[in-house]
Amino acid sequence: MTLQRIVLTGALGDLGQHLRAPLAAMCEALVSVDLKDAPELLPNETYARADVADLPEMERLLQGADMVVHFAAIPDERPFEELLRPNFLGAYAVWEAAARQGVRRIVYASSVHAVGMHPTAHCIGLDAPHRPDTFYGLSKCFAEDLARLYWEKRGVEAVCIRIFSGTETPGNARALGTWLSRPDLIRLVQRSIDTPVTGFAVVFGISNNARAPVSNAGATFLGYRPQDDAERWAEEILAAEPPRDPQDPAHSRLGGPFAAVPLGESGVAWIRRLTT
Amino acid sequence: MTLQRIVLTGALGDLGQHLRAPLAAMCEALVSVDLKDAPELLPNETYARADVADLPEMERLLQGADMVVHFAAIPDERPFEELLRPNFLGAYAVWEAAARQGVRRIVYASSVHAVGMHPTAHCIGLDAPHRPDTFYGLSKCFAEDLARLYWEKRGVEAVCIRIFSGTETPGNARALGTWLSRPDLIRLVQRSIDTPVTGFAVVFGISNNARAPVSNAGATFLGYRPQDDAERWAEEILAAEPPRDPQDPAHSRLGGPFAAVPLGESGVAWIRRLTT
Amino acid sequence: MTLQRIVLTGALGDLGQHLRAPLAAMCEALVSVDLKDAPELLPNETYARADVADLPEMERLLQGADMVVHFAAIPDERPFEELLRPNFLGAYAVWEAAARQGVRRIVYASSVHAVGMHPTAHCIGLDAPHRPDTFYGLSKCFAEDLARLYWEKRGVEAVCIRIFSGTETPGNARALGTWLSRPDLIRLVQRSIDTPVTGFAVVFGISNNARAPVSNAGATFLGYRPQDDAERWAEEILAAEPPRDPQDPAHSRLGGPFAAVPLGESGVAWIRRLTT
Amino acid sequence: MTLQRIVLTGALGDLGQHLRAPLAAMCEALVSVDLKDAPELLPNETYARADVADLPEMERLLQGADMVVHFAAIPDERPFEELLRPNFLGAYAVWEAAARQGVRRIVYASSVHAVGMHPTAHCIGLDAPHRPDTFYGLSKCFAEDLARLYWEKRGVEAVCIRIFSGTETPGNARALGTWLSRPDLIRLVQRSIDTPVTGFAVVFGISNNARAPVSNAGATFLGYRPQDDAERWAEEILAAEPPRDPQDPAHSRLGGPFAAVPLGESGVAWIRRLTT
Amino acid sequence: MTLQRIVLTGALGDLGQHLRAPLAAMCEALVSVDLKDAPELLPNETYARADVADLPEMERLLQGADMVVHFAAIPDERPFEELLRPNFLGAYAVWEAAARQGVRRIVYASSVHAVGMHPTAHCIGLDAPHRPDTFYGLSKCFAEDLARLYWEKRGVEAVCIRIFSGTETPGNARALGTWLSRPDLIRLVQRSIDTPVTGFAVVFGISNNARAPVSNAGATFLGYRPQDDAERWAEEILAAEPPRDPQDPAHSRLGGPFAAVPLGESGVAWIRRLTT
Amino acid sequence: MTLQRIVLTGALGDLGQHLRAPLAAMCEALVSVDLKDAPELLPNETYARADVADLPEMERLLQGADMVVHFAAIPDERPFEELLRPNFLGAYAVWEAAARQGVRRIVYASSVHAVGMHPTAHCIGLDAPHRPDTFYGLSKCFAEDLARLYWEKRGVEAVCIRIFSGTETPGNARALGTWLSRPDLIRLVQRSIDTPVTGFAVVFGISNNARAPVSNAGATFLGYRPQDDAERWAEEILAAEPPRDPQDPAHSRLGGPFAAVPLGESGVAWIRRLTT
Repeated sequence: MTLQRIVLTGALGDLGQHLRAPLAAMCEALVSVDLKDAPELLPNETYARADVADLPEMERLLQGADMVVHFAAIPDERPFEELLRPNFLGAYAVWEAAARQGVRRIVYASSVHAVGMHPTAHCIGLDAPHRPDTFYGLSKCFAEDLARLYWEKRGVEAVCIRIFSGTETPGNARALGTWLSRPDLIRLVQRSIDTPVTGFAVVFGISNNARAPVSNAGATFLGYRPQDDAERWAEEILAAEPPRDPQDPAHSRLGGPFAAVPLGESGVAWIRRLTT
Repeated sequence: MTLQRIVLTGALGDLGQHLRAPLAAMCEALVSVDLKDAPELLPNETYARADVADLPEMERLLQGADMVVHFAAIPDERPFEELLRPNFLGAYAVWEAAARQGVRRIVYASSVHAVGMHPTAHCIGLDAPHRPDTFYGLSKCFAEDLARLYWEKRGVEAVCIRIFSGTETPGNARALGTWLSRPDLIRLVQRSIDTPVTGFAVVFGISNNARAPVSNAGATFLGYRPQDDAERWAEEILAAEPPRDPQDPAHSRLGGPFAAVPLGESGVAWIRRLTT
Repeated sequence: MTLQRIVLTGALGDLGQHLRAPLAAMCEALVSVDLKDAPELLPNETYARADVADLPEMERLLQGADMVVHFAAIPDERPFEELLRPNFLGAYAVWEAAARQGVRRIVYASSVHAVGMHPTAHCIGLDAPHRPDTFYGLSKCFAEDLARLYWEKRGVEAVCIRIFSGTETPGNARALGTWLSRPDLIRLVQRSIDTPVTGFAVVFGISNNARAPVSNAGATFLGYRPQDDAERWAEEILAAEPPRDPQDPAHSRLGGPFAAVPLGESGVAWIRRLTT
Repeated sequence: MTLQRIVLTGALGDLGQHLRAPLAAMCEALVSVDLKDAPELLPNETYARADVADLPEMERLLQGADMVVHFAAIPDERPFEELLRPNFLGAYAVWEAAARQGVRRIVYASSVHAVGMHPTAHCIGLDAPHRPDTFYGLSKCFAEDLARLYWEKRGVEAVCIRIFSGTETPGNARALGTWLSRPDLIRLVQRSIDTPVTGFAVVFGISNNARAPVSNAGATFLGYRPQDDAERWAEEILAAEPPRDPQDPAHSRLGGPFAAVPLGESGVAWIRRLTT
Repeated sequence: MTLQRIVLTGALGDLGQHLRAPLAAMCEALVSVDLKDAPELLPNETYARADVADLPEMERLLQGADMVVHFAAIPDERPFEELLRPNFLGAYAVWEAAARQGVRRIVYASSVHAVGMHPTAHCIGLDAPHRPDTFYGLSKCFAEDLARLYWEKRGVEAVCIRIFSGTETPGNARALGTWLSRPDLIRLVQRSIDTPVTGFAVVFGISNNARAPVSNAGATFLGYRPQDDAERWAEEILAAEPPRDPQDPAHSRLGGPFAAVPLGESGVAWIRRLTT
Repeated sequence: MTLQRIVLTGALGDLGQHLRAPLAAMCEALVSVDLKDAPELLPNETYARADVADLPEMERLLQGADMVVHFAAIPDERPFEELLRPNFLGAYAVWEAAARQGVRRIVYASSVHAVGMHPTAHCIGLDAPHRPDTFYGLSKCFAEDLARLYWEKRGVEAVCIRIFSGTETPGNARALGTWLSRPDLIRLVQRSIDTPVTGFAVVFGISNNARAPVSNAGATFLGYRPQDDAERWAEEILAAEPPRDPQDPAHSRLGGPFAAVPLGESGVAWIRRLTT
């Protein structure tokens, strides 16, 4: 099954940019969407500068699409008011446009921060309840519930990938457990697309790390087999790790620094401070 | 412990109006809030005409409040865009204002429709995952997750009461299981207020119906003991009940007609059609 | 909703005979079926002497029926070969005939002996797996699985009532927990019929005994509220109870004597011996 | 079944003294054991001044006993070294003596403090893991595990009653949920004795309080039906209750003040301070 | 431990034929049983043409056997009446003969179709309840319950292998998850035999497929480590896969085509139609 | 993070001796403690001959320690009185001394025998309740509960490693499942130390055996990836294995011979007898 048309939102973002080529290889036409200027394009790629929260625009872009890979969002904690349009209304517009246009499935960049307040030591599975650690995490909870609603009422399939630490390499002790390598991200998105029937599914986006603090046992049917393991960096990273307060949410909760940052303040900035 | 000040939003709504007197009896000053003209007031009641989604206004109204009983919302399915302000942004503004003002606890009118797609025959407990049946239900999922976030990050306690069928009397066969009598609603709100410590809690708002399709076993510490039972109306209602298609969500899912109504269309209108 | 036609199999059996009048009151025409001579009939009752394992006969009898209350079976342990026709093939014929005739629902006399090897002290719920204690119990497991199959593939609803000790009064110490009074049996059958939608459901048939060793929490939507309690007989019965070996299955497993009787031998005879 | 001989340890303690008469009525000879001088005796009661940690002495006292009701212990938090003999070694000696003497069953005064660190709002069941709040609670965990070991290896039955707040009347807001009335304590001990077979069982010792924060659903076979409800005192107690810090273990954990008291310091003294 | 005698039923069937050599290597004498003419035999193999539902015959054949590997059955959906003798009565006769002859263990070819109505996306474990998809699946439910009964009442051990797609190579998209390679089948049967003690066990017969939709975590003690992975065929198979209706049981339930085929009609024929 | 000081108790024991070098490599100063004469020391190792149950001595030894690896204990079943000091009081003294000295974490040699009465075929996870098989196992239950108490009340982290069969090579059929190789033991202790935050954690100490009868899924965050597999010895061991009684606890329970040995008698002697 080669797909006719895949729409990738957030195509120029930190993670989205790595998906353009693999997705282009899975379909006849890739439509990349982002807010920035057009990049150099792949042979079967077109680009649209568009705001995902603009429903008529999204409806137009999704015409004839088989699937949407929805990665557009502010990927950090911010005041609720700032996240409202890109993260919350954007999700609504994408799903509503998809339903109207008969799009089969949405692959969604959810996040560990939807369950970030769970203690790392609990090693939760996919059935753990939402425990957002930030407004950012709350936007992911919202979109997951929205996705389930559109599946049950409108028949739009959804795979919600809860991305953990999607960095080039694991940058700190927490990431020894939570790292998602770029190749594994690509594998997971590919499986989310080529699995014939998914219904509504949630899956953790995490590499095959020895220290992975969660279990994907509830979504094995997707066939995601991560190949990378952050353990390669363990010795070096742990050597530099100072003792940590075991009560500090930044070191004892799944969400890491996001579990400790005040609501509305940038978690990415916190991480930077913590690791420099 | 007599409370100084309780703020009741949606005070003139279908359910809120029944809470004014009981709440007034539990505190020195009740502040009733709604969008309509001021009603005749109780001795220790003041009234504010205000939009709950107006954060500065809410912040002002919540000054000095011990607790907020947040019932303001559109109590029906509507297009997402119509629910956005009153149900979603209203919830955000109430919690944010409460956190800023040091309000201790919010008692929230959540709804069965946050879990309305679960089959009635599953007899779920409080740990069942969100399965909203409408945008309306989605707004309740959003507020519950928001409540948990504010509890974990800001220390605001919350009791989310998932109200089932809050009508005067049970009006149809489904309500034999889902009815929440007015006196039981009042009891449940009272317990949600007088329990010394609640943290974040969710509880089903349902009477002591013989046919109640859910279990409150996960929230017994709240001391809610419903006294009414819809079974009194069973013979009469069932005599008039035609055979039902067991595959029809309106008759096999917790959400009833909301589980069957198209997204964005009034579920209340559907119920009316179904029962007349 | 008054039903047109209910078919009651095993209508002259130990339990079935108590259901004739209550069922006759719930429908316009009751068809009672058993292997014996015709009894004196109720005004709206007809009687058919028939073997439930005779599929063409059952198909004829079920024409126009809304529901079947299937109680016909050998109610005791016997060699497998003896149970094959009445209990196994009888169940198959009833369900197949029902599916062919468009019967809406079957209310089935399943038994505690489908789960009789579970320790009494485990206080299982309705989600405990099958652990039959006899060929008799195995026939009930078979029929429950058959019922689920016909619900999922043919849309025939089913309520499987796992009857515990359906005696006039509780006759021994075990029955202080397992007794099902005749009035409670009738209540449970009534609820299994008047509940508008049941899909496939399993429920324990047990009175409101203080010592009830199981929980019906998974089937509350049926509205079954038992009124009788064997505790009334506790003092008298326990006074006569000799010390029991706590390892003896007859006293430590849900199935009681059936859990101890050799496969194929009458459990009823065992009980008689044990209590005399 | 009238028992020949019951041995009651801690017979002159706060709770034990209320059990003498009811136990005497259940057997031909009651042997009361405590460390104090002999009290006035009931007709069929004998008294032994003995240290339960003295194994030869216990072995002598348990000769011919059917059951032991083991309530002797320091009922408060103390340094580990002080609890070692009465609570830990006492439990060992009682079980070992019972096994040697062929005693059928031990009814044991365990405590909520074996699980006292669980949050009240979790409404745990009997399957929740041990989370002791004190050395005192740890001694109860030890005895429960010991009891299970003697059941599995030596065949001694055990009912471990986790007593909550065994006071005359509920003395504070926590006790509205945790109260165990004297009559209900007696009922529970009676059921623990007259149930023919118990194997190893754990049950919460708590009255029928509206606000009871735990579920006994896992031990219903014992037939314990509490009759008292602390709610009668709710209005009076709650009126005097100041606001509580929801993060304070003394108000948010099952163990109450014991969850907050430093290890080794008297929890009873803490409670007194908290309530005066 | 070399076994004296293993009896293999269905020895000439699609799967059974691959077991003859491996089983012969595990014992001194292999007795192969089937309905067809005798094949060319292995050195320590004997052959019996026999109907497994013939109890006296089975009793004779099982004399002196240590274990039975029971694979004889119609391996497809058929009218109940056609499956009755080979699948239902055959299972009964094998277990009863084994119990009479003191056979230690039966390794049974159960099937995914015993749980075939579970949604693939649920990724069930071994504790999921029976949900047969066909009469064929029902016969496997029956035999599993029978096996448990004979273990608990007669001490006959049983390993029920729920075989998924036991084809030479994975033939369609579903089989990318459900394939059981021949070498893995042999491994699993070997482990089911050489594990010293099994009691009653159920295990999924499935290869180490990346897309395996179930978890064998509940039976790890058997030491089954599958080595093959259908993913090798994924690219080729998925390229040819047309879009699927996510509501179609044939593509969304574990049982695949059997979940969609009408009761009593050949599922194998359906599969053939679906894949050609 | 290089640690300043690790204290290893039981440093000359069967398992402890293998930890000296690896632990010495993880810290600046290793303090080895045992009851025997001093061994030849590593460059950064000091040795103390001391009784772990001697609290003042332990307090002195733990000054300045970051972590304690507590392996000192009688590693076999003995009369309770003999185990009391080394195993029970030793654990208490180590934890109390650690809390007083501000030691960050204790890595504890717990044992499979804390859960040894669970049937092997149940394949339990880390959430299974305590079911000790011996007084030895009871001492491990005691220390695990103690560890949780000190974590919750005093903030001392703990990793309780439930060691299975810590022999040089797997010595019998049971050990094919339960073996913990020396290198894997070292890996697990290393991970228990280098994980930045552990809180209170329990983990099974078992190699990557094909037949491992338990799941470590609840403690994956520790990053323990065993590398050895007892299966290498399977053919040889199983060839010599006689048939086993499936009801014999020595062959059907996790604890193996300890599950069968009379309370207080050496399990190690039993194993020796069973395997010679």
